[in-house]
Amino acid sequence: MEHVAPPTGYPVVGMIGGGQLARMTQQAAIALGIGFDVLAANRDDSAARVVPETMLGNPDDPTAALAFSRNCDVITFDHEQVAVKVLEALTEAGANLRPGPAALQYAQDKIEMRKKLTAAGIPCPSWLAWEEGMSAEAAGEQIGWPLIVKTSRGGYDGRGVWVANDASELTQILTNPLAPGARWLLEQKVDFAAELSAQVARSASGQAVAYPVVRTVQTNGICTEVVCPAPGLSAEMAVTAQDLALQIAGQLDVVGMLAVEMFLTADGVLVNELAMRPHNSGHWSIDGAISSQFDNHLRGVLDLPLGSPQRLAPWVVMVNVLGGDQPDMYRAYRHVMARDPELRVHMYGKEVRPGRKIGHVTVLGEDLEDLLARAHHAADYLTGVIDE
Amino acid sequence: MEHVAPPTGYPVVGMIGGGQLARMTQQAAIALGIGFDVLAANRDDSAARVVPETMLGNPDDPTAALAFSRNCDVITFDHEQVAVKVLEALTEAGANLRPGPAALQYAQDKIEMRKKLTAAGIPCPSWLAWEEGMSAEAAGEQIGWPLIVKTSRGGYDGRGVWVANDASELTQILTNPLAPGARWLLEQKVDFAAELSAQVARSASGQAVAYPVVRTVQTNGICTEVVCPAPGLSAEMAVTAQDLALQIAGQLDVVGMLAVEMFLTADGVLVNELAMRPHNSGHWSIDGAISSQFDNHLRGVLDLPLGSPQRLAPWVVMVNVLGGDQPDMYRAYRHVMARDPELRVHMYGKEVRPGRKIGHVTVLGEDLEDLLARAHHAADYLTGVIDE
Repeated sequence: MEHVAPPTGYPVVGMIGGGQLARMTQQAAIALGIGFDVLAANRDDSAARVVPETMLGNPDDPTAALAFSRNCDVITFDHEQVAVKVLEALTEAGANLRPGPAALQYAQDKIEMRKKLTAAGIPCPSWLAWEEGMSAEAAGEQIGWPLIVKTSRGGYDGRGVWVANDASELTQILTNPLAPGARWLLEQKVDFAAELSAQVARSASGQAVAYPVVRTVQTNGICTEVVCPAPGLSAEMAVTAQDLALQIAGQLDVVGMLAVEMFLTADGVLVNELAMRPHNSGHWSIDGAISSQFDNHLRGVLDLPLGSPQRLAPWVVMVNVLGGDQPDMYRAYRHVMARDPELRVHMYGKEVRPGRKIGHVTVLGEDLEDLLARAHHAADYLTGVIDE
Repeated sequence: MEHVAPPTGYPVVGMIGGGQLARMTQQAAIALGIGFDVLAANRDDSAARVVPETMLGNPDDPTAALAFSRNCDVITFDHEQVAVKVLEALTEAGANLRPGPAALQYAQDKIEMRKKLTAAGIPCPSWLAWEEGMSAEAAGEQIGWPLIVKTSRGGYDGRGVWVANDASELTQILTNPLAPGARWLLEQKVDFAAELSAQVARSASGQAVAYPVVRTVQTNGICTEVVCPAPGLSAEMAVTAQDLALQIAGQLDVVGMLAVEMFLTADGVLVNELAMRPHNSGHWSIDGAISSQFDNHLRGVLDLPLGSPQRLAPWVVMVNVLGGDQPDMYRAYRHVMARDPELRVHMYGKEVRPGRKIGHVTVLGEDLEDLLARAHHAADYLTGVIDE
């Protein structure tokens, strides 16, 4: 269909990437009444299924991105792994990138991120950028065994991350091929009490709001459970985590949503990863906050005043639904709705593949144990791990 | 773009009509992961802007409706004024209409509705189906002056409704042209303490849930304010109203959402109008309930288990945004967001026209007076009635 402009006065946000983050952003864009366009590779991509103003094209192709940007007042992203040549071409053409390339580099390259945060005095795990000719033993001595090995660029959801228990394992890992432009980052394997995520929204003109700090659980590198607020986290530590996230957003000039993944340790928090977009750790906010992360991402990149990140219940629990062996989920879906009328089910319009993120469920209320049990039961039933 | 089927196992709901109700249903359909198609007249209709699987066609044309229905497992409607010839053609072709024509007739024809409800013992205002040759004086004597004159079919948002103070006014009103198939319905002008709306969702197999009863305010026949729950309504009267709505849904075999608009009088409640679709009086539920009316409409027509209609705060206030004289609302929009970060703004992707429903705002919390003031300020500012 031809491109249709929004009503008089409303801007168009273009999102590069057609995954579930763009799909859920569409729900927020509908309420805001703005124009919302997506650049997606395939017509049956999660977001392309629900956004009429989808342009089909390779999001890594500068020509496609340039053509896409012509209808848009602001360009944003549903993933960080945007090709540098796309960013350069858009910048050169004067497109309004939010977040901008200067911010985005710190989400794209973990070594640049570590350098920047360390220089700013933000607490991080011990780290080392591996250089040709270094000694594995000396690196291990500096950081301590076991240590974490990451590719500086291109990894996500547990890909591009290894654990090395000793020098010979490290040497072996370093024989893996690196993506163009990527290097090896070695990090301390942190002994953490919990993993946290502190999300903030920041607008182009610098207004910022902090969401409650959540506890995340990763299974095989994939986020599977989020509890808001993080159970047992002291008010003081929560404020510290929020302050760090606000500080990072300001120092890196992030526009839109920023998720700061952190380790909670006996000595405080250490920053693990950054994401400059809506993030899995904020899906709870669709049903559990006044303004969701998708709403505030759009407001931030449009430089609109931000919405309240306040939560709507004492506890909000989000559990991811991963694909199992059953391609047809509809019977299971009916079952989980019948069992729990308060369950909020979000499916992403994706075919089932084992281990693939295909949806999530959210419940909110006062009894955390009960909410956790209900959310996990629903997710496990949808995945096919349990059948009763 | 070509039609894209939903992932394996998921059904497709087709909605006839491309207004804001279909637009907001899309937000719920995205979360459910089902297929959602719309038949709309124009590419820039409120829903056509946000639903990729939009077929452009005249919703009153049986040929268009039949072509549309071929991709859909279930057909539903965003308005009641569906042409009878469309319903007949779809029924004959074996389309799965929900609600079905047998139920829909009572939302389409107010005389049929009055007959049915009266026969079922549901309290209604005194009424009379005007027949050629009746005496205006005698009609007035039976019902009492002043009385309400309505066209039995085709009226909405205050259109097709008059007040007659005496026999000569009544005679004058009855000289207005009637739409084909319409007749004149005369009704008691009820002296009400408040107008209420009792919404229920009912699934194809008969499961039903009742939303909290809300108070509505109509201005010039258009709903402008909704408060959930209805202030000052006794628990006993609320249950009576919910019971009536559930009874009507069951007796009329409504599938999907039913709104029963009622007058609260000193002697109890009287049923005013029925709507068999998501309704303006339920927009509060998007931000204010666990499962919105749009979510439960889809669940009901798909015969999925229904979601909880429970509200998320002691009070939820929804105020409609009507078009004013300013075609560009974006400056006002920025202002209301800055003034109230907790405000939920919903714009419908419609160009401004004076008096046109172009959006709504919702706020929720504990202090009703404060919520009312904030919601009205925002709506008035967006309309342009106030500028500070």
